Amino acid sequence: MKKFEEKTIHTDSIYKGKVISLQVDDVSLPDGNTSKRELIKHPGAVAIIPVTQEGKLVMVEQYRKALERSLVEIPAGKLEPGEGPEETAKRELEEETGYTTDKLEFVTSFSTSPGFADEIVHVYLATDLKKAESKLDGDDDEFVELLEVSLEEAEQMERDQRIWDAKTAYALLYVKLKGLMV
Amino acid sequence: MKKFEEKTIHTDSIYKGKVISLQVDDVSLPDGNTSKRELIKHPGAVAIIPVTQEGKLVMVEQYRKALERSLVEIPAGKLEPGEGPEETAKRELEEETGYTTDKLEFVTSFSTSPGFADEIVHVYLATDLKKAESKLDGDDDEFVELLEVSLEEAEQMERDQRIWDAKTAYALLYVKLKGLMV
Repeated sequence: MKKFEEKTIHTDSIYKGKVISLQVDDVSLPDGNTSKRELIKHPGAVAIIPVTQEGKLVMVEQYRKALERSLVEIPAGKLEPGEGPEETAKRELEEETGYTTDKLEFVTSFSTSPGFADEIVHVYLATDLKKAESKLDGDDDEFVELLEVSLEEAEQMERDQRIWDAKTAYALLYVKLKGLMV
Repeated sequence: MKKFEEKTIHTDSIYKGKVISLQVDDVSLPDGNTSKRELIKHPGAVAIIPVTQEGKLVMVEQYRKALERSLVEIPAGKLEPGEGPEETAKRELEEETGYTTDKLEFVTSFSTSPGFADEIVHVYLATDLKKAESKLDGDDDEFVELLEVSLEEAEQMERDQRIWDAKTAYALLYVKLKGLMV
């Protein structure tokens, strides 16, 4: 999986932040010419498709500064150092929704923006949801509202672009194809 | 769609590149506290789901420096200034695959990484594909190999993670749900 490999000639580290870093690489192309690649480093994330016993999808609404608007999404969160994706998925599910589960199934993983970022999202299906005895606290700077919606409601939200991100669009096709929701 | 709005107090422009820009915003949160948001600006992109008369999916393999490996993806490309998404979709389809079509249907659009980037991908279904008389030239620094695969072959590539990005994962569920491929 190195077809058309672009070899790094030089890396210019531009910024190291709390969540992302930016570097610009000079690369040599397969034809011997050179080019520049602007690259974002990200720790990776998980996303959870939580389906209740009643066949409703548990979602969260939050403000997304990058888009200057709020979005309704499936719960998600960044991997913390030393934490495996399954552990992150259980923690984020509890922090964002107040649900716990022992039934977490790996669905898939994918790169979100392979053209400029190394972010990988690991997607899990969570069923057999139980209300946690006491809700874990999330990040101090996260304000999130919980929603439980039917497939029809979710699809309407998608047409209205209240749902408007790739992982949630993927999740809606997935639950529909698997017949997991009412 | 401004729930939990985060108001900008100050913007620090860190980098303006060929494809992406980076800024760090100081924001005031709904509870009056402040936080920082690291934000990537991107011009937006289109992705095309090209299905041949024989029900095969046309895909491209290319090196993705951000991931240091090659990926098999549906054709995609950035919006150019002044260019509408449908126009970009037709151009990228021809540049990357050598196919043209008069039958391009809007499928959906979504944000790829709402946590840190404003990139939106507009997804189109392309059918009634015809070989272009002369192939348009793409970008000088893009090396791309063409593949035409069945649904079964594509799903195997996904299990092998040769297909490993969100827009293509979405596309595979979409063609399966719609029964568009053999």
